Amino acid sequence: MPRFSNLYELLLTFIFIMNNPLKGIAQSSTPDKIYGFTEAHAATELRLEHEFDQQLQPSDLDSWMKRLAARPHHLGSAYDHQNALFLDSLFRAWGYQTRIDTYYVLFPKPKSRILEMTAPTHFRATLEEKSLPQDPYTQQIQEALPPYNAYSIDGDVTGQLVYANYGLPDDYEMLARYGIDVKGKIVIVRYGHSWRGIKPKVAAEHGAIGCIIYSDPADDGYFQGDTYPTGPFKNPWGVQRGSVIDMPIYSGDPLTPNVAATKNAPRLSLNEVKIFTQIPVLPISYHDAQPLLEALKGPVAPPSWRGALPITYHLGAGPATIHLQLSFSWDIVPCYDVVAMLPGKAYPDQWIIRGNHYDAWVHGAADPISGQVALLAEAKALAALHQQGWQPQRTIVFCAWDGEEQGLLGSTEWVEDHLKELQQKAIVYLNSDGNGRGYLGVGGSHTLEKFFNQVALSVIDPETDTNVVARLRARIISQEGTQASSLDGDQYIHISALGSGSDYSPFLQHAGIASLNVGYGGENEGGEYHTLYDTYLDYIQFKDSSFSYGITLSKTMGRCILRLANCDLLPFDFTHFTQTVKHYVTQLQQLEKHERDTATTVNKWLEQKIYALATDPQLRMALPSPKKAVPYLNFAPLLNALSELDTLANLYASRTNDISHLSPEQLRKLNQLLPQSEQQLLDPAGLPHRPWYKHTIYAPGLYTGYGVKTLPGAREAIEQGNWPEAQQQIIQESDAIKRLVKLLNTLNKI
Amino acid sequence: MPRFSNLYELLLTFIFIMNNPLKGIAQSSTPDKIYGFTEAHAATELRLEHEFDQQLQPSDLDSWMKRLAARPHHLGSAYDHQNALFLDSLFRAWGYQTRIDTYYVLFPKPKSRILEMTAPTHFRATLEEKSLPQDPYTQQIQEALPPYNAYSIDGDVTGQLVYANYGLPDDYEMLARYGIDVKGKIVIVRYGHSWRGIKPKVAAEHGAIGCIIYSDPADDGYFQGDTYPTGPFKNPWGVQRGSVIDMPIYSGDPLTPNVAATKNAPRLSLNEVKIFTQIPVLPISYHDAQPLLEALKGPVAPPSWRGALPITYHLGAGPATIHLQLSFSWDIVPCYDVVAMLPGKAYPDQWIIRGNHYDAWVHGAADPISGQVALLAEAKALAALHQQGWQPQRTIVFCAWDGEEQGLLGSTEWVEDHLKELQQKAIVYLNSDGNGRGYLGVGGSHTLEKFFNQVALSVIDPETDTNVVARLRARIISQEGTQASSLDGDQYIHISALGSGSDYSPFLQHAGIASLNVGYGGENEGGEYHTLYDTYLDYIQFKDSSFSYGITLSKTMGRCILRLANCDLLPFDFTHFTQTVKHYVTQLQQLEKHERDTATTVNKWLEQKIYALATDPQLRMALPSPKKAVPYLNFAPLLNALSELDTLANLYASRTNDISHLSPEQLRKLNQLLPQSEQQLLDPAGLPHRPWYKHTIYAPGLYTGYGVKTLPGAREAIEQGNWPEAQQQIIQESDAIKRLVKLLNTLNKI
Repeated sequence: MPRFSNLYELLLTFIFIMNNPLKGIAQSSTPDKIYGFTEAHAATELRLEHEFDQQLQPSDLDSWMKRLAARPHHLGSAYDHQNALFLDSLFRAWGYQTRIDTYYVLFPKPKSRILEMTAPTHFRATLEEKSLPQDPYTQQIQEALPPYNAYSIDGDVTGQLVYANYGLPDDYEMLARYGIDVKGKIVIVRYGHSWRGIKPKVAAEHGAIGCIIYSDPADDGYFQGDTYPTGPFKNPWGVQRGSVIDMPIYSGDPLTPNVAATKNAPRLSLNEVKIFTQIPVLPISYHDAQPLLEALKGPVAPPSWRGALPITYHLGAGPATIHLQLSFSWDIVPCYDVVAMLPGKAYPDQWIIRGNHYDAWVHGAADPISGQVALLAEAKALAALHQQGWQPQRTIVFCAWDGEEQGLLGSTEWVEDHLKELQQKAIVYLNSDGNGRGYLGVGGSHTLEKFFNQVALSVIDPETDTNVVARLRARIISQEGTQASSLDGDQYIHISALGSGSDYSPFLQHAGIASLNVGYGGENEGGEYHTLYDTYLDYIQFKDSSFSYGITLSKTMGRCILRLANCDLLPFDFTHFTQTVKHYVTQLQQLEKHERDTATTVNKWLEQKIYALATDPQLRMALPSPKKAVPYLNFAPLLNALSELDTLANLYASRTNDISHLSPEQLRKLNQLLPQSEQQLLDPAGLPHRPWYKHTIYAPGLYTGYGVKTLPGAREAIEQGNWPEAQQQIIQESDAIKRLVKLLNTLNKI
Repeated sequence: MPRFSNLYELLLTFIFIMNNPLKGIAQSSTPDKIYGFTEAHAATELRLEHEFDQQLQPSDLDSWMKRLAARPHHLGSAYDHQNALFLDSLFRAWGYQTRIDTYYVLFPKPKSRILEMTAPTHFRATLEEKSLPQDPYTQQIQEALPPYNAYSIDGDVTGQLVYANYGLPDDYEMLARYGIDVKGKIVIVRYGHSWRGIKPKVAAEHGAIGCIIYSDPADDGYFQGDTYPTGPFKNPWGVQRGSVIDMPIYSGDPLTPNVAATKNAPRLSLNEVKIFTQIPVLPISYHDAQPLLEALKGPVAPPSWRGALPITYHLGAGPATIHLQLSFSWDIVPCYDVVAMLPGKAYPDQWIIRGNHYDAWVHGAADPISGQVALLAEAKALAALHQQGWQPQRTIVFCAWDGEEQGLLGSTEWVEDHLKELQQKAIVYLNSDGNGRGYLGVGGSHTLEKFFNQVALSVIDPETDTNVVARLRARIISQEGTQASSLDGDQYIHISALGSGSDYSPFLQHAGIASLNVGYGGENEGGEYHTLYDTYLDYIQFKDSSFSYGITLSKTMGRCILRLANCDLLPFDFTHFTQTVKHYVTQLQQLEKHERDTATTVNKWLEQKIYALATDPQLRMALPSPKKAVPYLNFAPLLNALSELDTLANLYASRTNDISHLSPEQLRKLNQLLPQSEQQLLDPAGLPHRPWYKHTIYAPGLYTGYGVKTLPGAREAIEQGNWPEAQQQIIQESDAIKRLVKLLNTLNKI
């Protein structure tokens, strides 16, 4: 799974960045001054970083990718295990202390897959991707997993078909206005606008008995550009595989929530698991989808629902009738996490953890090998510095995760396995995943925003010879129009909040470890994601031919690791965090107002017959339901806590702006307490309806999946109109802020 | 030509309506009080209108449409002449004084049409629409004009193909950024977003040697809904015919600008005419367009340029190479305007003119017969009232125009023929064209806005049993969201300004006769416009099956005619007009600011390398050109004139709000002068570069065609960066307002 499943999400990141203007952060970023370093140490650090850069070789990335993506290597496959051993051998050869932590996880694979239309004509879907003579990798189809969605239940269902757009809650509201009920029907929905696991979940909540997910060429295919192998976009046979487990409830092995999936761990039985889909679900190509969609009648789909197939999109239900039969092996397979350590000199029990998964759905050249090879280059370069005599002040831990694609299995089991140790030792978790040509993308803990900006300002974009922050700022300005000129004089960018979709999630949201997720992209669009076509040949033609952005990722992450490992004072900052959370509270207040205004308007329009008069009577549209009145929430506890935090964060910032006056003892004490800051934000009770997620500020959305919800407890309660829960969650969130206030009080007294 | 060539333009109307909030106009619209009538006369008038309504029979409209649209009847065809004689006989039978005014106009018809792709593969376009067994009318293909664009020049050109989106000036700017020059090339553009005649004009200005226009299914085809005959939308063979003469320069017979095309009129020679296209142009179906577009390579078209064909849209140039050969007969044909008069009792020399064209591109059931049959129903009903003893105070003139489709030939020649008489006698020109199921659409002189609203408030929508204004307001509110609640308490709608596209243009913009253009639509979408498929069967299946909106149009126009013909005081109002023009001035000021801000931003971004940094270097996009600085214009003359007008308009309104205190002599004098008001707004010198158009407030856009430009002289000069001309036109426009001020001064002294 990549950071951004598509350009849309990347754009959302940018938009968030722009909506969160923080000021006055530019002045300290002179090139020869580094947050958390004394002047003398900063000079050494910069020389070290220069030396680090010299070690990075694009040819290394190229040959590692060729090796790791040579064959299909999904979780549990032979080549996946070979890759684990290969990675382990590399780290060991470079001088790391390595080990492979093995877990035993549930991973269903298809035994049978049938999708056929039984009326008005017969059609049997191929459910296969085509091998291409131009790309020999695509001929290794015997070793590859066929297209399917992992953790769909077994099922054998027949029903009329309904087209439900992206399959989001709003889409079913629209269907209801057209008088269409999906109860007892099979829905066909298109990929996009949510994480895929949300689609069967929402379909089942509305009574559908089966769910088909396809890639419409409007979102992912010829509409975007030439298709593979001519261009990078999805050809008619490409199918996006992927997990559909209800990951917003918990990630990791479905049978062992909260505990590591060791050989003898207590396990849920299959029927105790609540996070499988409720209905069978299967992904298909647009080649297979077109005959089904074309056979639908009923109302014409509203304009925004129409895709790029050369048909009139109808909603159904029927007359297309679908038979869907799926069965899976429900096997337990080994999951190999490769862990490599370089011990720290001064603080061996402070760990800087750098991870990227290595398992793929098929060959996974882009996802995840492009990120994995950057990680390897960092490890090799650090090892070279180490051989030249350098030793980090803190311990550096490289992790190559297995089983990410199924639901962050490797990373989650490892975090659950080592939870206490990590909460004591881990300083920061640094994640990457797929990587390619283009713009910097970054999300993470806002206590690291200041730190990360200074890092990125020193990294040069290989295409434009400016730094990667300036390039991203130019992109944002060009997309935001003249308004973005309000950023003039400010050289920073704001990092986005993290939802889910890669291995940072258990670290940040379960364990409370400050995290960053970094990658480059935006000029590497394509349709290879989770298909047979994500191969080395696709990658070097269309993603990052010269691996120059792989090197850029290594430079970015290498600086993060080196600075965090070497610094005199850990570079946490609480001013950006406070401003960011204040901004989230403003969003919640706006959301509450929006809900109230919407309810008022809908009810007024119903009363004034606006809907009835403004709609073609021949469409026989149902009226929207009247809305309940929206009460006023009390945001004061949260605002008061943030007000206190603001004062203390500024005090801490001014005390640590120049660290030369701090004694070694003060630094040691600060360094001991600072990593605890993120954990203060965890609610021990966890989020409502999903206690595994404990972070009060960042979580994946219950109905967006990867997409983040900030202040998730209150926000989702507001979105769902659960006002008592919203009020209660505001209290939980303000309690979390108060815990951070308390920690800062302590820090400021050191 | 219909009022709205598509829903997009209809929407623009609504948007304008919403952007022009005028207040305080509701209070006088009590049902028993009518503007311009004494209370006693109002009661009589309402009884008369009730009686009028009783006369209207849907079965009449149905049988007249069947008769008029039975065979293809384009200008110069045998059936066109038969229709003229039939219309004349109807009016005569009902008791009107009728005549047929005949003009002799230039009308080229195709002799040969060849469009073939010569590379990379060979393909010859069919250039034919298919007859359908389900619709016998479509089998009369021998009598029909084949698909072509009238007033394309003859030509025989071969060149590489370039895709230029909608063919607007901005599209060529975008092509330039991709490094694509259309010089010596043939462009293919899609219908929509401008009047079709603009497309070859702009293509030629950029050096193209030929122009192909096609209907993309995204705009006009299966993307919208089921295609004919299953549904109303454009099938793969449908081609939109239409004139491509440079009508924004002048309308009417190209050989006789400013004078009537009588038999012996002085005529330009063909090579003296400046308003033919500069390059050959041909419209084609999407069936014929797909192979051409599919054969293009070069950059992938930007997202908003992509249509709904199942291909990746590329820009070219080439490798597709096109041979286009066109030749036309350049014949002079007769053009028959049918004119029917019912003389007025008190003011026989004050004419209320009601017109609709009757010529079509093929059968023209919707365009124009659906409007023509409503006009006939009005004439028949008035005749019945007349037979019962009623006689109008003023003369009513019905006009059935010929040759509208070629460029408003019939109406323009008639206006030019009778210019002086019309400027003395015509009170208002009331136009309609195609009509169908849905919402009220209205444009016209804002001196009639108050009058028209009161009329429409008394017309009941047949689908919802509310009045047509309330229904339109509901539609606007539902489309504008909650913001539209600002209209609460106000029951009026604002009428849009008129550009061109139907026969009001010569009346309003050349002769200065206050005009209204009215029609219903928005629930009658389809792709039949100017194709073989605009038949009676299409109309009764998909447009207005029961002719209930034909009847509604008759009721609306009937009230307009009756009130204007019978009123004690002509219901011109100047308060709405003043507020509307003030709003236009604000738009101009915003436009000037926008141009200045854009220039500043573009230049700053160039300097800061924003464009270069924000774009994928592999796309090799050219930078935008630096912009010249934008000077400040002096709007004071216009604002001062409007300020004076405001005072006088309010004074006039308060004097005439209750007309009972006005003497017959005062009323007579006012009635004599009021119709002159619109002519005060004419600039005798005409608009820059197109002196035939004389109205300083309303004109078709030089680069939009049908689309209106208000305060056109200044607006288009600003758009084109011609600042001296903009300043000079502000003076011309303020002079026009001052002439109206002078007239109002006179009126207020009566």
